[in-house]
Amino acid sequence: MSTPSPTNGPVHEFLAGLPLVDHHCHGVVTADLSPERFESLITEGGVWPGSGITPFDSPVGVAIRRHCAPVLGLPRHAPAAEYLARRTELGWGEVNRRFVAAAGTGVFCVDTGYSPGSDRLTTPAELAAAGGAAAAYEVVRLESVAEAVAGEGVEPGEYAAAFVAASQAAVERPGVVAVKSVAAYRTGFDLDPSRPSDADVTEAARRWLPTGEIATKSHGPHEETPVRHRLDDPVLVRHLLWTAVDLGLPLQLHTGFGDNDIRMHRVDPAHLTDWLHLTSGTIPVLLLHCWPYQRQAAYLATVFEQVYLDVGLTLHYVGPARARAILEEALEITPFRKLLHSSDAYGVAEFYQLGALAFRQGMAGLLQERVNTDDLSLPDALRIAAWTGRDNAFRVYGLPAGLPEALPERDSLPDGDDA
Amino acid sequence: MSTPSPTNGPVHEFLAGLPLVDHHCHGVVTADLSPERFESLITEGGVWPGSGITPFDSPVGVAIRRHCAPVLGLPRHAPAAEYLARRTELGWGEVNRRFVAAAGTGVFCVDTGYSPGSDRLTTPAELAAAGGAAAAYEVVRLESVAEAVAGEGVEPGEYAAAFVAASQAAVERPGVVAVKSVAAYRTGFDLDPSRPSDADVTEAARRWLPTGEIATKSHGPHEETPVRHRLDDPVLVRHLLWTAVDLGLPLQLHTGFGDNDIRMHRVDPAHLTDWLHLTSGTIPVLLLHCWPYQRQAAYLATVFEQVYLDVGLTLHYVGPARARAILEEALEITPFRKLLHSSDAYGVAEFYQLGALAFRQGMAGLLQERVNTDDLSLPDALRIAAWTGRDNAFRVYGLPAGLPEALPERDSLPDGDDA
Amino acid sequence: MSTPSPTNGPVHEFLAGLPLVDHHCHGVVTADLSPERFESLITEGGVWPGSGITPFDSPVGVAIRRHCAPVLGLPRHAPAAEYLARRTELGWGEVNRRFVAAAGTGVFCVDTGYSPGSDRLTTPAELAAAGGAAAAYEVVRLESVAEAVAGEGVEPGEYAAAFVAASQAAVERPGVVAVKSVAAYRTGFDLDPSRPSDADVTEAARRWLPTGEIATKSHGPHEETPVRHRLDDPVLVRHLLWTAVDLGLPLQLHTGFGDNDIRMHRVDPAHLTDWLHLTSGTIPVLLLHCWPYQRQAAYLATVFEQVYLDVGLTLHYVGPARARAILEEALEITPFRKLLHSSDAYGVAEFYQLGALAFRQGMAGLLQERVNTDDLSLPDALRIAAWTGRDNAFRVYGLPAGLPEALPERDSLPDGDDA
Repeated sequence: MSTPSPTNGPVHEFLAGLPLVDHHCHGVVTADLSPERFESLITEGGVWPGSGITPFDSPVGVAIRRHCAPVLGLPRHAPAAEYLARRTELGWGEVNRRFVAAAGTGVFCVDTGYSPGSDRLTTPAELAAAGGAAAAYEVVRLESVAEAVAGEGVEPGEYAAAFVAASQAAVERPGVVAVKSVAAYRTGFDLDPSRPSDADVTEAARRWLPTGEIATKSHGPHEETPVRHRLDDPVLVRHLLWTAVDLGLPLQLHTGFGDNDIRMHRVDPAHLTDWLHLTSGTIPVLLLHCWPYQRQAAYLATVFEQVYLDVGLTLHYVGPARARAILEEALEITPFRKLLHSSDAYGVAEFYQLGALAFRQGMAGLLQERVNTDDLSLPDALRIAAWTGRDNAFRVYGLPAGLPEALPERDSLPDGDDA
Repeated sequence: MSTPSPTNGPVHEFLAGLPLVDHHCHGVVTADLSPERFESLITEGGVWPGSGITPFDSPVGVAIRRHCAPVLGLPRHAPAAEYLARRTELGWGEVNRRFVAAAGTGVFCVDTGYSPGSDRLTTPAELAAAGGAAAAYEVVRLESVAEAVAGEGVEPGEYAAAFVAASQAAVERPGVVAVKSVAAYRTGFDLDPSRPSDADVTEAARRWLPTGEIATKSHGPHEETPVRHRLDDPVLVRHLLWTAVDLGLPLQLHTGFGDNDIRMHRVDPAHLTDWLHLTSGTIPVLLLHCWPYQRQAAYLATVFEQVYLDVGLTLHYVGPARARAILEEALEITPFRKLLHSSDAYGVAEFYQLGALAFRQGMAGLLQERVNTDDLSLPDALRIAAWTGRDNAFRVYGLPAGLPEALPERDSLPDGDDA
Repeated sequence: MSTPSPTNGPVHEFLAGLPLVDHHCHGVVTADLSPERFESLITEGGVWPGSGITPFDSPVGVAIRRHCAPVLGLPRHAPAAEYLARRTELGWGEVNRRFVAAAGTGVFCVDTGYSPGSDRLTTPAELAAAGGAAAAYEVVRLESVAEAVAGEGVEPGEYAAAFVAASQAAVERPGVVAVKSVAAYRTGFDLDPSRPSDADVTEAARRWLPTGEIATKSHGPHEETPVRHRLDDPVLVRHLLWTAVDLGLPLQLHTGFGDNDIRMHRVDPAHLTDWLHLTSGTIPVLLLHCWPYQRQAAYLATVFEQVYLDVGLTLHYVGPARARAILEEALEITPFRKLLHSSDAYGVAEFYQLGALAFRQGMAGLLQERVNTDDLSLPDALRIAAWTGRDNAFRVYGLPAGLPEALPERDSLPDGDDA
């Protein structure tokens, strides 16, 4: 039988044993999940009661039943009801431990700024401990910092300084390696690229602070739970992005795919071009997710020294069967030093494993086939695999060395076939 | 020989025998067609006399010669001249009967609002009769209703009520299951999403009604023949879309690919996001065609409960050889309950068969390969095939039951190899 | 082993022996290149000293080491350092001769309007001579003409007439077959499509001429070297495009991919739709590069008689391993008379060979597989190969006949395996 994507070979073996750096993820819920809550966490849409449509009947649901069920000791393609029952039977602690370990991730960089509703999430240290990872680092979500400043009460004229000070304090804590912005959700990228004046920021803060609307909507891992002041003023978003430049740490930017708060045509990262010119020579900028604009993101990563990209979130939503196609587009013209791995896992532990698996299978399929057709040498393929799966993140974030060269005791876990 | 797309297996067999619901198509011309007229009906461009470029020298032309010629008793890849001669020899009645029957379609939903020039088109009932289908339903094109209202003469202040009343009367006729808008052709989707006020509509009608320009251009199945008043006022288009919401029936929206009246960058369905938020919880919205924005359409179908999509029109223009690639993108993240089949056939009977064949081959290739690689179970694959080819349309349109489970007497017709 | 893209068969053999028309390329540097200079010429980004990122570690770099190294007598996948050393050892004359000959190009159409810095480039005649091509023609870059007019000093009220006269003189020289615009780099395509009035042009010239800023940035083959007056005024760019219409020659338009002077979202060729309507029936318009908007370009080529496209530049940057995927998208709906081949090679001779190889392998892979699956007849496949690789350019540019039917003495060079 013809199989377009090679499913074995030395690149597959190498990637299966490579401890990944997951440069952008979130925590996992530390509680048992009702079926409804689980379903709400495996879609960027909603659960839609009464619609007859369930997130299990989608590519990510099929991928969970195929690739995650075996980690819980179930047969491949186990029905959704059995899957959920088995999850409950094992309990959240065991479920989380199994999936995070099965991810084979050596380092997590965790966005700690999103914790909707009443769910308690793992801390970065708990996440690393669950998976036996070497280390976990923290990514500071700047909108959360700004909204906390607003929530604590601040005069408009003091907002800028208070936000900058709070941001500096946040990034000076041990283990913080990057900041993140969800400007994509708030205004999109079709913004004036220039740094706003102090007067503009004060005026915008005056508009925003007293009348801060109460956001009530919350689904998907990328947006807030009810929060007093949702930072969606274009001037303040610009100020936030420029504050990131001043902080000097790498900046992660949500682009493309997300829940329905996104206006897709306004989150094409190409809209960032003028801002990238203005901020050239300052901080690294990491474009997250990117789909369906992975080619536009690849263009930016090709022509701007400071730009990097990943296709996290996308890979587990399309599933391992389609991951290679996305990676092919993301890597069409891209310098191999510019692509990183992330799971963007949030809430359910499955996504750490599924994101890692999709990355490994997709990248290995892409590279191994080029080796098979002699378009790429094997040593080059292994180098690219190590760069994209691990080393590029070490470079961009300046992580301390010490990651084990290979994963010790996961043998058959990466392909999700064993419990 | 390597064949990336599996061409046989149980999913292929299942889809070959599944009576499809073609949820969006048009009528077929009930007359013999001159070579020039036939060529004009198999392109979204023009015939371009003297250019040396013929629509036969394009993917759809190659697909017709490969997959339609055998239905007329010709060898595969018959030359265009022989194809046209054979068509004439058989006569329009026999040609139409063969292709519509070869489509293996159980139910047609027919947009009856487009009938350019002097061509007489089949009624829905005639179309169903030609193909031996179980049923045919009607889709009301709202722009045609509005233009008829204008053509009959109405005062600006009465336009809104007259259009609403005419629309209600139109959809209350037996067999009407949906409405359709070609706003994409008139204004694109970059519109104020809010419902216009009565005063705004009256003012817009005043601008539009007296000075309605005479549209003279007509080619392709999506736009009008010469019509006194072409509804292209942004306020009136918004009023039309909100009238669709009030009517309560599913709304079909042309998006993406069409003739050169389209401004492609303005028909990306992502521009509809704000309107979809405002109309959430009301009517189903079916995004038609979508190419090259099938990923943006898939995003909307994933995050909005009421949104569905198809890649009709696209599939026969790219041909069966490329249909799978389009479907792969359309289904990357999409709930399997959200994709429907349509041919968008218009004018020539070939497109009913070719659209159905491209859908069956493309979807079967996609699903069968995932079964072959064990990324999908066979029962799941068959369920997805039945949903997308038939059942999703039944649900969205609330069609009465009674469709035969399988196609009785078409054996080898679906792949277009026999006469 | 499974190989999704067929790598041999009669279409491959045919295309390997077909002398191509490279309808858009530049000259090659007639000097030895330092490693840094070579690297700067094989990226649309920069060299980024100290970054640890080299253009060799990208798809185009891998492709050079795989497919160009053998032309220099090195093994496949030779390390970058060895590659550069061998290049130096052979000297620029021999290197250029080998690669241009290995391209197997019969006719070059050379954009002579871009010559940054101090590099001397081959003239069209020198290029043809290096490759043993039958002929080389010239393409006049209109921005260079306008900037030369400005540089020579002209009164605002005389600018329009002076530019038109200079353009006419430029295109009347022997061997000129087309004009070109880099409006994509200057303003993007989101322009008022109408012809500007004389008064508007004079006023714009008044703004532009005296205060012409000094452009200092230069990298990539598509933008200027330091030049006194960079034509980036929207009115003057529109005047330039309408002047092209008056000149009557085919117009090549840069669209999509380029260096970071591009704002990608503004160079989607769909923005040209209104202008294409206004200029319908006048000159052929050739959309160059197009990525990532090859589908939008294909749409325009399908619905406008005068529009053509290529995916030059893109093909060597993605490399032969990915060329077919790009061509599949570019040809999804496109009339086969509308796609042309170009290398867009500039500066380094490798790109003539690599662009031609990627085109041949990608197109042959696409066509041969369709022949293998009987979706296309072999005679049709060969016809499409000849059209896209050679004949379409002959038609559009009205080139005199006389190109040899087959390439005589290149046997194994096209696949880059022999020196």
